[in-house]
Amino acid sequence: MNRKSIKVFAPASVSNVGPGFDIMGFALDEPGDEVVVSTNDSGKIVITDITGDNGKLSRETENNTATVAIKALCDEMKIKQGIDVAIHKKMGIGSGLGSSAASAVAGVFAVNILLDLNLSAEKLLPFALAGEALASGAIHADNVAPSLFGGFLLIRDYDPVDIIRIPVPEKLHCTIIYPDIEIKTSEARQILPTTFTMKDVIAQSGNAAALIAGLSSGNSDLIGRSLVDRVAEPYRAGLLPFYDKLKKKAASAGAINCNISGSGPSLFCFSNSRKKAEKLASVLGEFVDEQGYGVQTYVSKINNLGPKVIE
Amino acid sequence: MNRKSIKVFAPASVSNVGPGFDIMGFALDEPGDEVVVSTNDSGKIVITDITGDNGKLSRETENNTATVAIKALCDEMKIKQGIDVAIHKKMGIGSGLGSSAASAVAGVFAVNILLDLNLSAEKLLPFALAGEALASGAIHADNVAPSLFGGFLLIRDYDPVDIIRIPVPEKLHCTIIYPDIEIKTSEARQILPTTFTMKDVIAQSGNAAALIAGLSSGNSDLIGRSLVDRVAEPYRAGLLPFYDKLKKKAASAGAINCNISGSGPSLFCFSNSRKKAEKLASVLGEFVDEQGYGVQTYVSKINNLGPKVIE
Repeated sequence: MNRKSIKVFAPASVSNVGPGFDIMGFALDEPGDEVVVSTNDSGKIVITDITGDNGKLSRETENNTATVAIKALCDEMKIKQGIDVAIHKKMGIGSGLGSSAASAVAGVFAVNILLDLNLSAEKLLPFALAGEALASGAIHADNVAPSLFGGFLLIRDYDPVDIIRIPVPEKLHCTIIYPDIEIKTSEARQILPTTFTMKDVIAQSGNAAALIAGLSSGNSDLIGRSLVDRVAEPYRAGLLPFYDKLKKKAASAGAINCNISGSGPSLFCFSNSRKKAEKLASVLGEFVDEQGYGVQTYVSKINNLGPKVIE
Repeated sequence: MNRKSIKVFAPASVSNVGPGFDIMGFALDEPGDEVVVSTNDSGKIVITDITGDNGKLSRETENNTATVAIKALCDEMKIKQGIDVAIHKKMGIGSGLGSSAASAVAGVFAVNILLDLNLSAEKLLPFALAGEALASGAIHADNVAPSLFGGFLLIRDYDPVDIIRIPVPEKLHCTIIYPDIEIKTSEARQILPTTFTMKDVIAQSGNAAALIAGLSSGNSDLIGRSLVDRVAEPYRAGLLPFYDKLKKKAASAGAINCNISGSGPSLFCFSNSRKKAEKLASVLGEFVDEQGYGVQTYVSKINNLGPKVIE
């Protein structure tokens, strides 16, 4: 048979968007992961290559988010076709940018096209979530859904999954600061309180509601005021030694506001133009460097497209 | 001097709008309170009449929400003019419809016009809040602000007060069911838990955010799905013996969804047309009556105007 092959890109994403802890996420233009899938004659799903992971990821089909997602899709669709999978990580693992989600999304998106399955993104979601669950130990859609659908998404509920696309101002830009600090997701979870007061609930729901109002109406000041998290940021800020200083630096360099991306160590910073976003990347990147940490920066709009074919 | 007089109406309001516990409220076209203010020569603020309260309200200036609000305004503006105040309660006290807030708002709104003070609604807010604080024992803006500004409002924060107007679908209607059941606000508060889990915070903030998204985009299904409260409704529902049955009845009669207004006993019910809202008033009023309780019903759009001069 003719060997078919396709290469796709799936975007990184920011989850835990300020007061949107566990319920909001958005996709970035960059970075993102690339996955190449090709038909093979073995009838098996095989990882042929992984690059950019510094040897951190398993090469076993059942222990990799991309291939677990692909296998879930093939099992459900009763597909016997063998598939070679090459994964090119273009962002740090454990960066807080939805790396495992991007690989899982890229995997199912690629196979959907490779095998002409013609499934909608909505139909692909459960399989990508199954891949992501391998990495996070639970079903979280706040990275997978933005990577798969693009845009700024609100995940209202999981039973059943209820995902709402939130309009964002055209001018909104995001600067990502990814410092070379290792934060284990398990540690970032353990550090959080298990009980909250009524004041916490009121403050968090007020800011979450206001952030949606600010995005929907294009009110930058409101977006900035609302980007306050009551349940994770106060505790996780301690994992980033320069966090408070960086936020002040960002404000004085024209940012709308900043917060932690996912469970860190990356930070995201909103601003109102590419020029400002690039200035923030430069100023904040230099600042983190001065603190003695390696750092990568990215500038992006909200990516409304999601994954795409690149070859 | 010429004796001047003015009569105003200030609307009732629904607070604790589903997941918007303590942070959302909206104004109604009816019911509402009427206040008549007139200049007098005594240099004092005097309550000349209160009707419709079944003798429940104090006639002392310092113990009535309307006159406390008026006094706060006059003190701040260094006004020595004497004012007679007549208060006509057009809704039950302790109804869960922001009765004390409406009286406080009517008072300051009326005096602002009577004495040509030309203050904006924003400037009047602190005085109306001071009046309301007498009734609730704390500064709560979720009834006062909608009654004063009109519309559907999100109160993001109190320090400083940050009030955001949320656009609502033109077709949205509200049916109020006010059963003759006494619920003491203090009891309704005591019944609430003092600590919440992370799941509670996530669910509440997800629904609050989604309700704003639903209102802003005119998505009735989303409004309905989001009108779920995690922190008060599950506990206060027990104070209304027929609550679960009424919600089912409302759903089968075409309601978008229902919830408790304020701390009850009133309930509010969203629907998509005046016809449906009137049907709901009829069906649900009859249902409450069958349960053996007296009941009043009101049908209204979201009142975007707030208080108004009626004479």
